[in-house]
Amino acid sequence: YWLPHGEICYKEDAEQKNDNKQQGTRDYNPKQMAIREKVFNTIIRCFKRHGAETIDTPVFELKETLTGKYGEDSKLIYDLKDQGGELLSLRYDLTVPFARYLAMNKITNIKRYHIAKVYRRDNPAMTRGRYREFYQCDFDIAGQYDAMIPDAECLKIVHEILNELDLGDFRIKVNDRRILDGMFAVCGVPDDKFRTICSTVDKLDKMSWEDVKKEMVNEKGLSEEAADQIGEYVSMQGGMDLAERLLQDHKMSQSKQACAGLSDIKLLFKYLQLFHVTDKVVFDLSLARGLDYYTGVIYEAVLTQASAVSAANEAQNCANAEESVSVGSVAGGGRYDGLVGMFDPKGRRVPCVGVSIGIERIFSIMEQKASPEKVRTTEVQIMVASAQKNLLEERLQLISELWNAGIKAEVMYKKNPKLLSQLQYCEEAGIPLVAILGEQELKDGVVKLRVVATREEVDISRADLISEIKRRTEA
Amino acid sequence: YWLPHGEICYKEDAEQKNDNKQQGTRDYNPKQMAIREKVFNTIIRCFKRHGAETIDTPVFELKETLTGKYGEDSKLIYDLKDQGGELLSLRYDLTVPFARYLAMNKITNIKRYHIAKVYRRDNPAMTRGRYREFYQCDFDIAGQYDAMIPDAECLKIVHEILNELDLGDFRIKVNDRRILDGMFAVCGVPDDKFRTICSTVDKLDKMSWEDVKKEMVNEKGLSEEAADQIGEYVSMQGGMDLAERLLQDHKMSQSKQACAGLSDIKLLFKYLQLFHVTDKVVFDLSLARGLDYYTGVIYEAVLTQASAVSAANEAQNCANAEESVSVGSVAGGGRYDGLVGMFDPKGRRVPCVGVSIGIERIFSIMEQKASPEKVRTTEVQIMVASAQKNLLEERLQLISELWNAGIKAEVMYKKNPKLLSQLQYCEEAGIPLVAILGEQELKDGVVKLRVVATREEVDISRADLISEIKRRTEA
Repeated sequence: YWLPHGEICYKEDAEQKNDNKQQGTRDYNPKQMAIREKVFNTIIRCFKRHGAETIDTPVFELKETLTGKYGEDSKLIYDLKDQGGELLSLRYDLTVPFARYLAMNKITNIKRYHIAKVYRRDNPAMTRGRYREFYQCDFDIAGQYDAMIPDAECLKIVHEILNELDLGDFRIKVNDRRILDGMFAVCGVPDDKFRTICSTVDKLDKMSWEDVKKEMVNEKGLSEEAADQIGEYVSMQGGMDLAERLLQDHKMSQSKQACAGLSDIKLLFKYLQLFHVTDKVVFDLSLARGLDYYTGVIYEAVLTQASAVSAANEAQNCANAEESVSVGSVAGGGRYDGLVGMFDPKGRRVPCVGVSIGIERIFSIMEQKASPEKVRTTEVQIMVASAQKNLLEERLQLISELWNAGIKAEVMYKKNPKLLSQLQYCEEAGIPLVAILGEQELKDGVVKLRVVATREEVDISRADLISEIKRRTEA
Repeated sequence: YWLPHGEICYKEDAEQKNDNKQQGTRDYNPKQMAIREKVFNTIIRCFKRHGAETIDTPVFELKETLTGKYGEDSKLIYDLKDQGGELLSLRYDLTVPFARYLAMNKITNIKRYHIAKVYRRDNPAMTRGRYREFYQCDFDIAGQYDAMIPDAECLKIVHEILNELDLGDFRIKVNDRRILDGMFAVCGVPDDKFRTICSTVDKLDKMSWEDVKKEMVNEKGLSEEAADQIGEYVSMQGGMDLAERLLQDHKMSQSKQACAGLSDIKLLFKYLQLFHVTDKVVFDLSLARGLDYYTGVIYEAVLTQASAVSAANEAQNCANAEESVSVGSVAGGGRYDGLVGMFDPKGRRVPCVGVSIGIERIFSIMEQKASPEKVRTTEVQIMVASAQKNLLEERLQLISELWNAGIKAEVMYKKNPKLLSQLQYCEEAGIPLVAILGEQELKDGVVKLRVVATREEVDISRADLISEIKRRTEA
């Protein structure tokens, strides 16, 4: 599973522009990294709260590992040059490497998260402003368990993360591949057209029903009657009650698959009620999601607050309206019970369900929200400064003591820096304290401790300095 | 700058073998990741203590960015397939992307760290057991500053990190490219042979002087007399006193370059004395280091305790003695004042000095030291269990409360798990507490809190549960 790829557009804003001449990639500057670290910490804290381990896999996989897993999108895979040895490709998502890892190590039960970059060689013509290298943050539960318990936990995790990141209101849409397939069957879609019709349904967040219907009828050769029947179903949204109603629906109830999916949706909602998250969850029959490997429940979280969506849009600065419609999507995933078996020589199945957090989009929203002047890029607590010349040695000696005591400290790399330039550096870097050394202080065995914000100064004996710094910076 | 590449050998030990069929890469399992996280945290804490910001760059660079930076090793660069668009290569180290970043963004002052994977397509024949994807942990200071102050801080950082990681005793060898070049000049090495003779000197940690001399004379065409003079110098080791002595040396003192380097070594030792780290630092004229771009001080840290070296050797399980000799090397770096200018259209210089921590080697030592059964891969504090059947809903409700209170908690994904299997899971995963729900507890409004290690059980009211768990797990 994956999110709509190419999460973020090039930023035209000069301040934030730091694409590095390669089309579709960018460097992260220290301010962006500080925001990124904060977002990652929130997400990792949540994954760990839910008992996840973490693994790592190489950035490239054997080409054959990726072949046949991504349908039409396979053309976006980056291949390495044949320089002798195996043919290799850069990973396209973290799900296929995870499935390969499970099969190769014969792991049947694991709850793991994996945060790493993935690569998609978007067609330059299509991709104005899409990044070709971006992070994914995946959480997955593998194992044969009772229905919908791990699935519900994945949705709880999305709920917790989006709440904690404080991105504004959101909705989590859920559906089930078996409901979609059952719906296609009862609406008269031929078996061999399920996947392609499913792809067309997936466009409903970007296209009107009229255009989707046109594509079904004109391009995919579906009968108008079948399309209309689908149109009725995919307009439905609700909760447990809708699942209940569809189980009674004379047409839908003819499909065993659909009934299995609908019963599971009911069960899912029951567990979500226990988690107190149903306020944000909508059973939405138009949710299809692109990838082939889903076999059960699927979901996608979207931001619904206009401000957040417009911040994301602005951050993305997409000229192309079509690309920006689904900008609100910040997480997605589902159940894929067949993927691990594709890598096992004996085809042994390991049922999996997981979620991917659309971290790049979240970064861009957080970047928009943060006032650049307030983002500190270091955690330095104190600068060791001198009021007179020829005190470099004394400064180095003192800072060494501070470092050894675990205090985050800086010193200017000049023999005789001016006091003013040392103080200015602190103001610019947001360093809260300065330890000022002068002839008199050295004679008295003290250090002048200055609070940058208030300019208040007080003499502290060398013996008390470390505890005084800790006391003042812990608050 | 970089460490001897391919830090770690394939592990033949079945338990730890997790190479993933691609030659030269490996997956990290949860236990390895837990160790890796601990090592990274120690290193990042140190970098932050010294006021470093962090940046990130893409995993691939334009091929032309890497061209001509690595000398002979350029053949080890991974190229991407030409699929249209720019020619791209996977990064070979973090130093060249850093220099490219500085030049492109016209940054003249920065102290940054960067932890990321780099790629070296080692010749399969040469590289039995070397990884082709491995981490580098780089800390660099860029800017025009007074001599040796940032250089001394880099060595202080190496000292702090190796101390904190508790890898046993170590030495930090230092030398200066200008001393090497001056030495070659006064020994009669022709100018155009400086770099190739330097490469041969660099082999002194793996070859005897006799073999090095043979290579100089027979392969590189140096006169026997010149080689013998070099031989005398490169056997010298000492401290500030040696620098002093060489400044008086009638031959060495004829080279301006050597004198500049020797004066800076003296200054470096003066600052290192203030940092109290001279006990571990040796001025060693045989230290050469491979890369072309160094222009001043160079250094390399090696583990000297037999146990650590043998642990690393064992971890690496290198059949090839030649490869395993320099196994003790765990950090290296130096000054490179010319590299940024190579990326600036006007050739503006930004002096830089930095250090790279040989994290893969450190991982392998830490892995050897850790008893596998004691490595916890999650931080889960409590399992929510049930003593009877039909309590899934009650378990889910309780765990949801715990998650919302920030407690790390797990529940088994079964409707009716046996109490015994829930308790066994805790023992295996190292989870210290169990919250047990039963009919009686629910009636009484309590939870039975069990300490896994002691099997002690006590009833806690639901209202007090969260504070009780926090109290017990904070200790």
